[in-house]
Amino acid sequence: MTLSNSFTLLKQDGEARLGSLVTPHGVVRTPAFMPVGTAGAMKGIHWRDIRDAGADIVLGNTYHLMLRPGAERIARLGGLQKFTGWNGPMLTDSGGFQVMSLAQLRKVSEQGVTFKSHIDGAVLELSPERAIEVQRLFGSDIAMQLDECVRLPASRDDIERAMRLSIRWAERSRRAFEGAPDGHMLFGIVQGGDVPALRRDSAQALVDIGFHGYAIGGLAVGEPQEVMLAMIGEAAPLLPQDRPRYLMGVGTPDDMLEAVARGIDMFDCVLPTRNGRHGHAFTRRGVINLRNARHADDPRPLDEESSWPGARDYSRAYLHHLIKSGEALGAMLLSEINIAYFQHLMSGIREAVGGGTFASFRERTRAGWAAGDLPPR
Amino acid sequence: MTLSNSFTLLKQDGEARLGSLVTPHGVVRTPAFMPVGTAGAMKGIHWRDIRDAGADIVLGNTYHLMLRPGAERIARLGGLQKFTGWNGPMLTDSGGFQVMSLAQLRKVSEQGVTFKSHIDGAVLELSPERAIEVQRLFGSDIAMQLDECVRLPASRDDIERAMRLSIRWAERSRRAFEGAPDGHMLFGIVQGGDVPALRRDSAQALVDIGFHGYAIGGLAVGEPQEVMLAMIGEAAPLLPQDRPRYLMGVGTPDDMLEAVARGIDMFDCVLPTRNGRHGHAFTRRGVINLRNARHADDPRPLDEESSWPGARDYSRAYLHHLIKSGEALGAMLLSEINIAYFQHLMSGIREAVGGGTFASFRERTRAGWAAGDLPPR
Repeated sequence: MTLSNSFTLLKQDGEARLGSLVTPHGVVRTPAFMPVGTAGAMKGIHWRDIRDAGADIVLGNTYHLMLRPGAERIARLGGLQKFTGWNGPMLTDSGGFQVMSLAQLRKVSEQGVTFKSHIDGAVLELSPERAIEVQRLFGSDIAMQLDECVRLPASRDDIERAMRLSIRWAERSRRAFEGAPDGHMLFGIVQGGDVPALRRDSAQALVDIGFHGYAIGGLAVGEPQEVMLAMIGEAAPLLPQDRPRYLMGVGTPDDMLEAVARGIDMFDCVLPTRNGRHGHAFTRRGVINLRNARHADDPRPLDEESSWPGARDYSRAYLHHLIKSGEALGAMLLSEINIAYFQHLMSGIREAVGGGTFASFRERTRAGWAAGDLPPR
Repeated sequence: MTLSNSFTLLKQDGEARLGSLVTPHGVVRTPAFMPVGTAGAMKGIHWRDIRDAGADIVLGNTYHLMLRPGAERIARLGGLQKFTGWNGPMLTDSGGFQVMSLAQLRKVSEQGVTFKSHIDGAVLELSPERAIEVQRLFGSDIAMQLDECVRLPASRDDIERAMRLSIRWAERSRRAFEGAPDGHMLFGIVQGGDVPALRRDSAQALVDIGFHGYAIGGLAVGEPQEVMLAMIGEAAPLLPQDRPRYLMGVGTPDDMLEAVARGIDMFDCVLPTRNGRHGHAFTRRGVINLRNARHADDPRPLDEESSWPGARDYSRAYLHHLIKSGEALGAMLLSEINIAYFQHLMSGIREAVGGGTFASFRERTRAGWAAGDLPPR
């Protein structure tokens, strides 16, 4: 069976790609950064500000949403977009990653994974078929297959066992997705840990099954950046040129810049909001740690040339005060400032790739970050 | 010495008043509700939304701000308006109330109050003169005198001692305010607990000293509503018609409606934000408790006719989900929805007083609240 294709590769500059992905809820310009709205909300940011910051698409976490408020309830309320009021494209993960990191008493079998809800202790099962069913109930524009993600470091045997299981789950996910409404997409997930041969096997097996797009999973789990980039280098060349490629859970601005240079189109990460809550601001001049006392009397904004009002209109002294005082507004402002910077970076990348100047953009951008309080990664 | 007057009484309807107060940072339409930005920020609300909701003026807490970031620092950074980015009128309290409720080891003497900071344990003194100095460093449009507020119930002797001390502090505050820049105002505070004769003595003594405006303090501290209204009834008739009257720390929509009916012009309260964080929505149809499970599947917005997007664009089911999940967005949305409702109520009051229809507005509004989950007070 052939799969529809809503992705258009508009331009290539080295391995870096400029593209456009049409979803039932709108167009996604790639490379794209997807802010993470865990339980149907961005932490500390209004939906309108996510859109104003330039995000085309956001990510929702199936694990959280299936536990509360529940997939069937969301379907009754008209789907995730209507429920949340975010009326744009949405990608949902399969729930597998959070089952592994948050749920108790999880047990993986051929059939799927059973676990206890971290909210009320209820015993639940997530199979490849149920993961797809749940995401179809949500009305997700892009659904992800259920996979098993192994924490690194791990033995080759453990990595291979999980990867092979994920391939079998990929086949079942693909079958379960048959009959999904037009335009809705399913992505397979390349696993294989830090083992190049397994990454290649995984990528090839997924391409043989056939998906609307391909994710690279199981990275950004503590391994050095060079390992992450090497694994992208193994998998990406095997993936079809005309399908979108999504690097899951990544990452820092530097990670994203390097991944784009290796042919990645989509990203998601909680970094801009989580680190924002801790007082870290991402800017053109690197990461500024607003907890630092040296900002207490500094009347300058984070970036007087920023197009984002929050980065331009508030002094570092005020942001420092808000963070030190635990005022919710501090977390709110830094979260949106960071999301806006991540979107600004993507917009710069897209412009550079479109103009064939990605290499110089990459050097200039990395040089700018050197002035920050904290290393870029 | 005569005091300048920037208040204009535009219209009276029974005892209810429509007015306009010109401050150095803009005009305040009265009756006015002042959202409380404790430590230089609204809890969970962007400044732009406070303004969009219709607030002309906000309140800052001197106790919090003098401890952190400090009055001298705020002055160096250009004053409270420039520091916070709220470029409109601001009233600051004297710090006395929070010293009583938050600080440790406080000791009241004729000179002032000594206390230990709840942040770092530093021993500090707040005198009537220092309270004025701090508020002048802030650049507050309206400063409040230092007073001693007694918790009710209390003995008549305790209430009278604190009231007499507050009068002596009022005189010292007035002297300390001499030479303040044009247009900046100082309000005296009527005390006297629940003792009618003491309320009258306090009001008369303050009028003899002379202030730009008059507050009624020491109410909304747990006493029944009828006691609060009776005390307003003692004090208000003694206050000059041509000066604004501010009922401190009040209150519920019903309290405000009744206080306006007795000649009050200004209010402040943490209720809309604090109760918003707890899942309570203030609406035309009363208080809706969104923690209640009966809202879990309700696709209706809080108020489909509201002029505030948050009250109109999100379902009760979604707000219920956000509050149950502890998502910051739930507190953010309900806080701004409540602030917007309080401002909407004030706007309705002003329109009714202006049109001479306050009595019927009051009845209609109170009848509307009856449909809520919780009593209006």
